[in-house]
Amino acid sequence: MSIKSDLEKNRVQELDDLLSALKPKILEYISQADPNSSNYKSSSLGTYHEPRFLREKLITSSGNNLDKPCTPEQLAETIDKVLEYSVNTWNPGFLDKLYASNNPIGVVSDILLSILNTNSHVYTVSPVLSVLENYIGHKYASLFFTNNQETCGGLTFSGGSWSNITSMQIARSLKYPETKSKGNAGYKFAIYTSKHCHYSVVKGAILLGLGSENVFKVDVTPQGLLNVLDLENVIEETIKKGFTPLYINATAGTTVFGSFDPFIQIHKVAKKYNVYFHIDGSWGGNVIFSPHYKNRLQGCEFADSITVNPHKMLGIPTTCSFLLLPHVGNFQATMSLQAPYLFHGRDNPEEGNYDLADGTMGCGRRADSFKFYLAWLYYGESGFQDRVDHAFKIQGYFVDKIKANSAFEIVGPKFPQCLQVCFYYHPPNIKASNTEITRYISRELHKLGKYLVDFSPNPEDDSKGEFFRVVFNSPILTDKIVDDLYDSIVQVGQELE
Amino acid sequence: MSIKSDLEKNRVQELDDLLSALKPKILEYISQADPNSSNYKSSSLGTYHEPRFLREKLITSSGNNLDKPCTPEQLAETIDKVLEYSVNTWNPGFLDKLYASNNPIGVVSDILLSILNTNSHVYTVSPVLSVLENYIGHKYASLFFTNNQETCGGLTFSGGSWSNITSMQIARSLKYPETKSKGNAGYKFAIYTSKHCHYSVVKGAILLGLGSENVFKVDVTPQGLLNVLDLENVIEETIKKGFTPLYINATAGTTVFGSFDPFIQIHKVAKKYNVYFHIDGSWGGNVIFSPHYKNRLQGCEFADSITVNPHKMLGIPTTCSFLLLPHVGNFQATMSLQAPYLFHGRDNPEEGNYDLADGTMGCGRRADSFKFYLAWLYYGESGFQDRVDHAFKIQGYFVDKIKANSAFEIVGPKFPQCLQVCFYYHPPNIKASNTEITRYISRELHKLGKYLVDFSPNPEDDSKGEFFRVVFNSPILTDKIVDDLYDSIVQVGQELE
Repeated sequence: MSIKSDLEKNRVQELDDLLSALKPKILEYISQADPNSSNYKSSSLGTYHEPRFLREKLITSSGNNLDKPCTPEQLAETIDKVLEYSVNTWNPGFLDKLYASNNPIGVVSDILLSILNTNSHVYTVSPVLSVLENYIGHKYASLFFTNNQETCGGLTFSGGSWSNITSMQIARSLKYPETKSKGNAGYKFAIYTSKHCHYSVVKGAILLGLGSENVFKVDVTPQGLLNVLDLENVIEETIKKGFTPLYINATAGTTVFGSFDPFIQIHKVAKKYNVYFHIDGSWGGNVIFSPHYKNRLQGCEFADSITVNPHKMLGIPTTCSFLLLPHVGNFQATMSLQAPYLFHGRDNPEEGNYDLADGTMGCGRRADSFKFYLAWLYYGESGFQDRVDHAFKIQGYFVDKIKANSAFEIVGPKFPQCLQVCFYYHPPNIKASNTEITRYISRELHKLGKYLVDFSPNPEDDSKGEFFRVVFNSPILTDKIVDDLYDSIVQVGQELE
Repeated sequence: MSIKSDLEKNRVQELDDLLSALKPKILEYISQADPNSSNYKSSSLGTYHEPRFLREKLITSSGNNLDKPCTPEQLAETIDKVLEYSVNTWNPGFLDKLYASNNPIGVVSDILLSILNTNSHVYTVSPVLSVLENYIGHKYASLFFTNNQETCGGLTFSGGSWSNITSMQIARSLKYPETKSKGNAGYKFAIYTSKHCHYSVVKGAILLGLGSENVFKVDVTPQGLLNVLDLENVIEETIKKGFTPLYINATAGTTVFGSFDPFIQIHKVAKKYNVYFHIDGSWGGNVIFSPHYKNRLQGCEFADSITVNPHKMLGIPTTCSFLLLPHVGNFQATMSLQAPYLFHGRDNPEEGNYDLADGTMGCGRRADSFKFYLAWLYYGESGFQDRVDHAFKIQGYFVDKIKANSAFEIVGPKFPQCLQVCFYYHPPNIKASNTEITRYISRELHKLGKYLVDFSPNPEDDSKGEFFRVVFNSPILTDKIVDDLYDSIVQVGQELE
């Protein structure tokens, strides 16, 4: 008797059939969201639904409890509903978060990763993708670490938070190697960052057993930049209290205002006190590709590590986040553990490390770096430059437009430094509060299925209420779309008069 | 003058063209690796190449330094080379790691994720995928936590290591909430695990600032199971030395031997000493789908958390790892930080948390859970059962076969408990050492492009040398393929006589 399974018994035909059924659905989905397509519907972004509505639509009403294989019709129906009720990020009105839609080459890279199903932890099973990660990590890092062109490099982690957290671990292991075996005991480590940093700095401190209390949040200037004088004061104070200064986080493109901290000055302070200097450039780091804007990163070459997310400003499919180091060998130096059942080494150690997981705190890894490699090949460095420059043009156009109308008030730096614009809209004839106006208009725009924009409390003065935060980060944005967004805000606002 | 970009100016046509070019390449690639296809080539797994060879083929000789957009021909050539030199995991000879090839519905789920480009951190941008993660996390968890059917649930992390590390953080925050703000200072926490645990337990202890020294590795029985008497002794000893027992890791399917620790007894010890009890079921947890093998997980319902990776035994595309909790609310309870610029809450808090990142230490997330949901819908629970049962049949067939030949010697438990088989092959007429034979044969099999099998040092007795570790984890495996693998080992071995 032979042992055979009915599952996957004709994979080629099965995949062919599924792809043939899927392709028109996908193209239809994208064309509805593409202003250049005759199929375009401005409402295709989709509107807001409560969780209970979606549970009913997708789960309860399907009558399928997942016990037996679904029918082809049930599969098709499910896929249709998933597309219908998801936010269609291909619509140019998706201006909510710091990432944008995927693009054709991004889809190709995801398909290739899916077909390869490579685990880029060990070279033997992931030869090509490990070599490409090593290559593109070095190429990427060398844009930032101009003083360490030879030795620099990078690895991907599953998001900016994990890259930041890993940098904190590298800091502790490099500066206090005994902590790897002994833990924090004995040290009272201090972390420094500005009040406008991303929450992952605090989460990192919690995860590393340092404690959120021991993250010292330094004041910001009116432009939202870390105040270096205050940084030095805070370091002095903490030293007096018995802390060991461990790690300074500076931000390139803060989450709310998009500000860039003064890296050269922060570096000097870090050097003076022998503190590790990390830059969280998850959002703003990719201005490195534009000769017009890269000077915002001045001094980044002095950092001990930099987080940059190609999945944000460069439109690489989510997630794709790199941690870049001036000395790539420090990944393994700080992370490696003997695990001979997994890492067998290679005959030529001078080739460098290609068992990439050995340089991380993880094991299994999806090769997110491949998506970045393929997009870089496809668009070229010049394409990334065009993308960044175009987005800044669109942002500038919107800023100019709202500056000309006194009902709008820009919050944060007068000239936003990154691709988001934070603003109040408050015409004198509307009585509602800032928060009420912001929430009403953003909800109504979402109801139209036309625009998804974010809002935020005011980090400087909570009493002023919530403001809009709109992110211009896609090559498909045009001045015409910005005009329409502006008009839509004003028009919906009139309902509050 | 209008502001427009040339990038992505005709996304629908561009994607259509790219997909049309890609599809035949993909189908050809898979058909070469599929024994049921007329296109099948047994050597299609691919052979070993050194990094320098691949650098030359893919990077140096391409003459493309990524400064300008590549030509369509360069793109096609690159994709061809990536496929050609990667390990073709669709080949049934891919028996190296604890995961297998992707499958058709897996590819579909990856494509949908790519099209949606959803960041499943916040409900507003990820309504459908967040609802589905909540649903499938609960459904999955309820298979394990039979005593907490209502409250249980799960979230994905980017691999088993990150799920395990997260569980350690949950343990610390739940049992000693003040550590969130104050760090470890004051406590000397102890972690307990068996000598055969995965390295992530130690990496977790390093990352959490507990220190690798404070991971106490408990002896194993001859079957590779955590020795519970020794566990209790070690806990007693550490308490005497002033440690605070924090966390016991038990394993369901150890990395090398595939053993299942005795969960009921470990639970009793954990309860006695008030220690958090985690099960790392990254590999073996999915035997839960088989009525024949699920008793190996007896007592798992008493765990405080369980890691299970659908990307291993269930063939979901890498990576897909869940951390499951008996009380899903503990994700947010232990991880949440105020981040009002991101998490705005919802009108009906009784709906539960759908801002999933708030329950993690990260922020941006790819919705890996969707791949599991779609596969579960497609195959049904019965399909997952068939998959697991078939794999065990194949493993059993191989075990029986090598037991009948005294040149083979099974290492570890006489009856391997999971899908891998560890063994020496040492016919009396071969003079070479175990390590020499293992490495020679595994390399030669790889050279043929036919089989990729792993090897490992002997965790019980290093002097015995390295053994083979072969993983049978795919529905396309048949007794015929196993026969051929067996014959190939014997045949290649003859070259050493």
